Order: sequence, then C-alpha cells, then structure tokens
Amino acid sequence: MNLTRKISLIRYDKGNIEETPDIVVREFPLTIHINKERIVTLLCSPKDFTYLSLGFLLSEGLIKEKSEIKAIEIDEKKGMAYIEVMGKENTFQRISGKAKISKGCSGGSLLYNVKDKLHDIPLDNNMKISYKKVLSMMKEFSGKSELFQNTGGVHSAALSDGDNILIFHEDVGRHNALDKVIGDAFMKEIDFLDKILLLSGRISSEMLAKAAKRNISILVSRSAPMDLALEMGKEINMTIIGFARGERFNLYSGKERIIF
Amino acid sequence: MNLTRKISLIRYDKGNIEETPDIVVREFPLTIHINKERIVTLLCSPKDFTYLSLGFLLSEGLIKEKSEIKAIEIDEKKGMAYIEVMGKENTFQRISGKAKISKGCSGGSLLYNVKDKLHDIPLDNNMKISYKKVLSMMKEFSGKSELFQNTGGVHSAALSDGDNILIFHEDVGRHNALDKVIGDAFMKEIDFLDKILLLSGRISSEMLAKAAKRNISILVSRSAPMDLALEMGKEINMTIIGFARGERFNLYSGKERIIF
Repeated sequence: MNLTRKISLIRYDKGNIEETPDIVVREFPLTIHINKERIVTLLCSPKDFTYLSLGFLLSEGLIKEKSEIKAIEIDEKKGMAYIEVMGKENTFQRISGKAKISKGCSGGSLLYNVKDKLHDIPLDNNMKISYKKVLSMMKEFSGKSELFQNTGGVHSAALSDGDNILIFHEDVGRHNALDKVIGDAFMKEIDFLDKILLLSGRISSEMLAKAAKRNISILVSRSAPMDLALEMGKEINMTIIGFARGERFNLYSGKERIIF
Repeated sequence: MNLTRKISLIRYDKGNIEETPDIVVREFPLTIHINKERIVTLLCSPKDFTYLSLGFLLSEGLIKEKSEIKAIEIDEKKGMAYIEVMGKENTFQRISGKAKISKGCSGGSLLYNVKDKLHDIPLDNNMKISYKKVLSMMKEFSGKSELFQNTGGVHSAALSDGDNILIFHEDVGRHNALDKVIGDAFMKEIDFLDKILLLSGRISSEMLAKAAKRNISILVSRSAPMDLALEMGKEINMTIIGFARGERFNLYSGKERIIF
C-alpha cells in the first residue's frame, strides 16, 4: 500500500502564491486481534503490519518468545492482524477484559464514529482571515513557547481571534496541549466558533477531530498534516494550513476563508 | 510545580567535550476520575490540571456543558483530578466498564509497574562505542528517512550494531516506528543485547521502557529526552544520548559506554 498520497495545495512563499501538487503521509488504522479478540487499533503507516503487531505485543508484554506464536494472518486491505498465541487464552481474556488497550482518542473505532459524526458539525463558513494575519499570528505563537526553546521537549497550542492569542498552553504531550486550550476556553466560556486554532505539532486525524468537535473552522500548524486529517477536513470544509513557518505556509482545504 | 528539572550532562560539540548543566522537561502522571471512577492516566506537564481534565473530557465527549460539572478537586501532589458530574453515573459506568481510556503504553499505572520491574533488567554493561561512531551512525540514520524528507510527517527508529544499521522503520507514530523495529528484529531473531537503538523522536518514559524491556543498553535520539525517562535510564544504567545532530550530542547517563 502507498505510504503517501498525492494532493494539491496552495503554497504561500514570500509573496508568491501558487497551486502546486505535493504529497502527504497516510494514516491507516490497523486492528490487532489475539486469539480472535480485538486488542487495539493503531493508526500507522500502512506497511509491515506483522512487525508492528508483534512489536506492539512484545512491548506490552503480551508475548515473550517466538515459540508462543501459532499463526499470524494479516488482512492488509481491511487493516486487520490476527495473531494466534499458544495456551494463553486466559491471560489475554483477563488483560482485555480489564482494560482494552487503546491509543490516542480511544483508538480507531471511536475515530470512525467521530468521522461519521463530523458531517453534522456546522462550521462557521463566513469567517475570513488575511494571509498576513496567518503569518503574524504564527510568528507570535512560535515566539511564546519558552519551554520549547529551553528544552526542545514540548508541544504548544493556542486559540486566536485573528488579532491576538487569547489562550496558550504548552505540554509534553501534543494532545494535552490542545486539551488544555480547550479546557481553558471552556472554563472562560470563550466561543470556539470564530476562533483559530494554532498548533506546533502535526495535524493527525485525532487532533483534527478534537478541533472539529469544538466547531473550530480554521486550524494552522507549524508542522505537517496527515492524509486522513486532510480527508476529514475537506469533508467538513475546515480550513487547514500546515508548515506555517516564517514567510510561508501550505493551504490544504477551506481556501475561501483565507484572503490573499 | 516545576515544569522542568535541572540536570548535568556531557555535551559533545564539534570536538569539545564538557560537563554542563542543562534543563529537561518533566513528565508527570495525572489520573482523572469521574464520579470517583478512574478514567485515564495522562503523562503531562505538571500545570493546569483542571484545564487538562476538562479539555480531555470534552474531547472524549464525556462532558458537553459547564452546567454538568458539580465539583472539581485537584490533588496536585498526588497527580489526581476528581470531577463530579451531574446525573450521568450510568453513562460513565458504561464507558469505563467497556473500555477504560488509556494512553501510550496503557497509561501511567502500567508505566509504574514497568518502572518497578526495570530494576531486574540486566543491561549489558560491557558494551562500549566511540563517540565518532555515534556521530556516523546518526548521520546514516538521518539520511535514510526518505519519507520524512518528502512529507515531514513521520518518525523513524533503527537498530545498529555500532557499525551498520541493521533494521530501519518509519511510521506516522513514534511508538509504531519503534514497535516495527522490535517486531522485525524479533522475527529475524536478532539479539537486542549488544545493539544500539536510534530514534528520531523524543525519548519519553514510555519509549525508554520499550527499549529497556528488550535489554537495549544504548539509546540515541535526534530529539530531547523527558525527565522521567532520564530518571528511569539512570536507575538501570542505560546510556542515553539526545539531540544527536550533525557534529554534536548530549550524553545524559551511562557515560562509561561512550569512548571519547
């Protein structure tokens, strides 16, 4: 399967604006089963599903030796890995009964529920912002991350009204930084509808879903977007900007909200 | 609480070697409870626990309105958030009975089990490698990441014997890239004991635990380490190198394995 997908975007680069082809990396849900029981859904690059499944089970302490593995069956198309393991049925039942392992936003299954529900989200389509404000907001945003500058170890997220950064948080976790912004705005009863979300980290489908659930219609990141996030963003007509650094950015969707 | 911790490290920079103070970012486990039931443990920067808790619950769809919240109690020292929510006891019981939400390596509780068990891990203390090989390995490693160079959207991980890169994988997920390397080496029956793990991404406690469980004694990353990872690495005397880029790196622990 392809690890990337070809897309078309609008690139702003020091005064030049052009529509250009580019590639984005794919996110693919792989669901791992042990002895027919679903253990986890990982969002991964669609390659080497056997290695990923075995490595995951080793890392989680669910297998130890090669001799424990009776059979491995991979359904690439459906994104399913079925691992049959010797005489440990009870162990796995206990583990998965107690706490199914889930990643990020509770794993792939919730993700697809989210994706289905995103159609109902009414994004504010009348919001517009000039490309100059995108550049100046991101300049202010990048300058604020003192913790990152000191340690190189954190992500940041912020909410802007287009002129000023209203809320800013940093955290060791990308998801935590965004959740802190969401919780802070919620406490202050700030309406998300006419706000812009700024991120330092990559735009995964899970990050996009968090923004969409809050009805945020413009998302700007210093980093790369993943293909599933772009797909979802297009469906709900969210404005997605990535690689916003210095005097450049890539505009992936919701182009009508950016004034050049 | 402090968001960073002061440490001492050995810095190699274009031929200069010096012991120097530095700061690393802290990882802190916050356990969120709804109506007295444990929902999740997040590894976060120890600040704004209320915002993080509420943002997390909003993002997961577990709360919607401010009026639903009866009480919020934060125990900063213990890393506990207790949220009392109106008349939804059954909903939360259903959610948390079905699949407790856990992050990364199954959340903080497992992490601490791991930390306890790390004492028993016999790392190969006789392994040594010259600083020149660290630089050349990382040069080869960074050059291999074609997908990253094309998309900026992936992490990579590799296993080296000090001379050559034996296994290399890229993935949209940091944990997936490492698990693919682990699964691949496991299938090929490669012994981890005398190998070096190379990472593009940050060294969190969860990434370190995965390496430690495989008895890897030298870990080199292009990025920053977190403080809990360093603490755990020191306990088991793992060699940890961060910010290995170009002609420089930071050596945090297990210094005797690096020959200058």
